[in-house]
Amino acid sequence: MTHIEFNEDRTSVRANIAAIPSIAPEWRARAVARLNSLTKPLGSLGRLEEIAARLVEIREEERPRFAKKVIFTLAADHGVTEEGVSAYPKAVTRQMVLNFLAGGAAINVLSRQGGIEVVVVDIGVDGDLDGVAGLVHAKVRRGSRNMAREASMNEAELYSALNVGIGLAAWAEKQGHTLIGTGEMGIGNTTAASAITAVLAGRPVPLVTGRGTGLDEPGLRRKIEVIERALEFNRPDRSDPLDLLRKVGGLEVAGLTGLIIGAASRRIPVVIDGFISSAAAAVACSLEPKVRNFLFAGHRSSEPGHAALLEIIGDTPLLDLQMRLGEGTGAALAMTLIDAAARILDEMATFSSAGVSEASA
Amino acid sequence: MTHIEFNEDRTSVRANIAAIPSIAPEWRARAVARLNSLTKPLGSLGRLEEIAARLVEIREEERPRFAKKVIFTLAADHGVTEEGVSAYPKAVTRQMVLNFLAGGAAINVLSRQGGIEVVVVDIGVDGDLDGVAGLVHAKVRRGSRNMAREASMNEAELYSALNVGIGLAAWAEKQGHTLIGTGEMGIGNTTAASAITAVLAGRPVPLVTGRGTGLDEPGLRRKIEVIERALEFNRPDRSDPLDLLRKVGGLEVAGLTGLIIGAASRRIPVVIDGFISSAAAAVACSLEPKVRNFLFAGHRSSEPGHAALLEIIGDTPLLDLQMRLGEGTGAALAMTLIDAAARILDEMATFSSAGVSEASA
Repeated sequence: MTHIEFNEDRTSVRANIAAIPSIAPEWRARAVARLNSLTKPLGSLGRLEEIAARLVEIREEERPRFAKKVIFTLAADHGVTEEGVSAYPKAVTRQMVLNFLAGGAAINVLSRQGGIEVVVVDIGVDGDLDGVAGLVHAKVRRGSRNMAREASMNEAELYSALNVGIGLAAWAEKQGHTLIGTGEMGIGNTTAASAITAVLAGRPVPLVTGRGTGLDEPGLRRKIEVIERALEFNRPDRSDPLDLLRKVGGLEVAGLTGLIIGAASRRIPVVIDGFISSAAAAVACSLEPKVRNFLFAGHRSSEPGHAALLEIIGDTPLLDLQMRLGEGTGAALAMTLIDAAARILDEMATFSSAGVSEASA
Repeated sequence: MTHIEFNEDRTSVRANIAAIPSIAPEWRARAVARLNSLTKPLGSLGRLEEIAARLVEIREEERPRFAKKVIFTLAADHGVTEEGVSAYPKAVTRQMVLNFLAGGAAINVLSRQGGIEVVVVDIGVDGDLDGVAGLVHAKVRRGSRNMAREASMNEAELYSALNVGIGLAAWAEKQGHTLIGTGEMGIGNTTAASAITAVLAGRPVPLVTGRGTGLDEPGLRRKIEVIERALEFNRPDRSDPLDLLRKVGGLEVAGLTGLIIGAASRRIPVVIDGFISSAAAAVACSLEPKVRNFLFAGHRSSEPGHAALLEIIGDTPLLDLQMRLGEGTGAALAMTLIDAAARILDEMATFSSAGVSEASA
């Protein structure tokens, strides 16, 4: 896959949202019955058992398997970086895409370890990546617009980005991937995620804005001021998550929102990485609360706005390792735990098959 | 390895404790320099970076590798089960050993996923396992004695069990294992671990005693009463950790203490599983505080006494998944995270090698 078809059509976004299924109650009982038959004290595997039950509900299979796993790392630039909101120059987005393709970034290392395919997507890098091999070419625009002066995206760009994500979910399903992780790369994207968080969670900007890749104190103050200015100018509508996404989001954030919607509509569980991915997920959950049933929060980011997004997503992260890198790195580590839960369900012996005595009543 | 030589000699225990090295300060600076050269914002991999630096210090290598990993699951029975302190019959210890050898237990599933060898050791099962293939035969006694009426072990049994553990560490080193996880199986062993915790941490028994594999309320009250009786009878000396271990420990707990000491003396990092393993580790740390430098707390057990032991060990667990199974299951999951930290150090590209711009000062 080096190219993905996408357009600005709104109907596929609406159709995917409408297609997100409800969770049928009977599957949980079947999962619990099997978990309780396995050779371990009842409930002794804690959250792994809860994950296993959720996977059964999502996949509607007694023993779901996750042999093929993929992380999509969506890369885009942000016009707002011209306001000086990042410690790194914008050129780093493109440089890191090349690093991903060469296998030298943290996401490559962790995905190799976890047996996870990494698919890198240019959804909006402000640099020339034409013809670069191994990359999914889906550039909607050379970077989003500067949200401090105009909306990050126009309507056509927003829907194009959402459709790229839906296209990736459709591709994953065709490839037989049964577990998806979200990842991103985009200098300036914590600015977009903080702006989304402030509005969606109704929190003051300074409380949900952090140092990103490593801003100093004056840099952080400037970032907060830029976000406040962007919100003042754009006046996004909290009750209209796509309006919010379009005005202060980014192309990779919108792509991830589309990916999450597309995955949920296909019953593919999605492991959410950190702050940026959670902003995309929170937009998706606000559009359609049923999305929550298909999401697993991978890790707790050290960005201060993350907790507010996790409340909207409605999950507690599996890992808390004080990471704040993005790329999908937290998702990669968490996907191994989710796979572990599925393997427990599938591979463990039962009390009767192993001839082990059960607890006294 | 189906048999392990061991004796009741005290000199090898003393020699191993004396051989535990100090951490040389220069290795941390080298680790940090390399971590800061990798293509990620400074410190953005959080605890993975701290783990990586500790691994460099322990192994005294710039890029330590953990291709061969092993979990030792030590099994033993506990005489104190005749007081009715467990929801499961004692026979389950032997049954679970056979389940481990057949590959059907949780530890087998998680170790297979993590590429970790599982070595199962009969250090004191009260049941016939003679000639069983695939098992390390190192039975010191058919179960420890009933601590409510006498000391769990006599001196010879204690040192024999410690020496089994040291022998396992020596075997691991010879096999080229560079990362060891601790595991155990023994109906009744949370009773021993709670007794150790109460004395070592100076806490009241009810605060450090939990439901183990699933005791009901009357069962929990009985367990607390039995531990209080055992401490009253044995009067272990808090300032003499081996006296404590001998009087209210268990054969597998003592074996794990020996394993941890043996591993530390050989610069092999050890991932501590849950409550039982932490009791063994806390005894080792109390004997020689330098042991701490070689330990990684794998996960936070839901047993109430675990937090007090973690304070003695001096580490925060990598995982908190509300698990309370033992066997080494928490260690298995955590070993993947520790391996991830090492791979980050070894496999990531640097800013200069990847041509990525660094942050502005």
